[in-house]
Amino acid sequence: MKRNLPLSDVYRLIEPGPVVLLSTARKGRLNVMPMSWHMMIDFEPPLVGCVVSDRNYSFGLLRATRECVLNIPSVELLPKAVACGNSTGRRIDKFAEFGLTAVPASRVGAPLVAECYANLECKVVDTRMVNRYGLFILQVVKAWIDRGRKRPRTFHHLGWGQFMIAGRTVTTASRKR
Amino acid sequence: MKRNLPLSDVYRLIEPGPVVLLSTARKGRLNVMPMSWHMMIDFEPPLVGCVVSDRNYSFGLLRATRECVLNIPSVELLPKAVACGNSTGRRIDKFAEFGLTAVPASRVGAPLVAECYANLECKVVDTRMVNRYGLFILQVVKAWIDRGRKRPRTFHHLGWGQFMIAGRTVTTASRKR
Repeated sequence: MKRNLPLSDVYRLIEPGPVVLLSTARKGRLNVMPMSWHMMIDFEPPLVGCVVSDRNYSFGLLRATRECVLNIPSVELLPKAVACGNSTGRRIDKFAEFGLTAVPASRVGAPLVAECYANLECKVVDTRMVNRYGLFILQVVKAWIDRGRKRPRTFHHLGWGQFMIAGRTVTTASRKR
Repeated sequence: MKRNLPLSDVYRLIEPGPVVLLSTARKGRLNVMPMSWHMMIDFEPPLVGCVVSDRNYSFGLLRATRECVLNIPSVELLPKAVACGNSTGRRIDKFAEFGLTAVPASRVGAPLVAECYANLECKVVDTRMVNRYGLFILQVVKAWIDRGRKRPRTFHHLGWGQFMIAGRTVTTASRKR
């Protein structure tokens, strides 16, 4: 059961650097790919920068529709995320192939990946760095989170098949947002 | 004892999203600040995007000198990183105040933070997104790593004093770099 996540809290999901699943849709075709090249750019409205290679099928869908969803998986989804990364949406429907559930989003045409504990609906708001770097600036327009998932363990890409699984959480005296 | 890290391996440090310490220097003044808003942009030469607020003292130093070091701390340095984030280089010398050791870099004027297990010497190569987003494009020109540190545990910002500590590493069948 997912609920609204205040947009001002989105950075708390993106800053730690989890692998996210980028979902897109165009003309009835859906796609989803794992992505680690992303960062926060502003708190509110939340802006996220991400880099997508023009060799990826998702690149064309994202550029054409200017919409996507950043879905945040926990470790249970690691095998499916790897499978999504080792295949291409040009040839298969990854949702069907890997048993992922596409749920309609509220503000964008791209689907939510139901199995992910959080979903960020995004619109592309700046494409000036796309030709040079594949860098899209996204604005998160709606965010969802499953509050029932108390300690979702994100996974973080280390390259060549290795991933770091999120460990314990500590609280410090930091006064910083 | 730090050794050269091949530039093609830099992404393996940045992708998982650790807090990094951004160090800068200008006219004999050094500064260092924790930063989580960064991402890889290209593999080789390694390009890293990062966002620095113009309210931070580091912003002016970075823009003026176009050089910095991204230092990657492990969990032992968490208290010092928090202290760096709760103070400003406008008023104090954080290296002296918090017991951090500045070591000369090889290719840039900004110092390495000796206590960090890896250090990425960077030059600013694109400032076109600085005015709008505070987004700098950095090229890593030299990278160092302490190979004696077998399992450095990075920390990852969750907001409001909370950090996730890197947990276990798993190996999957991913064929992706």
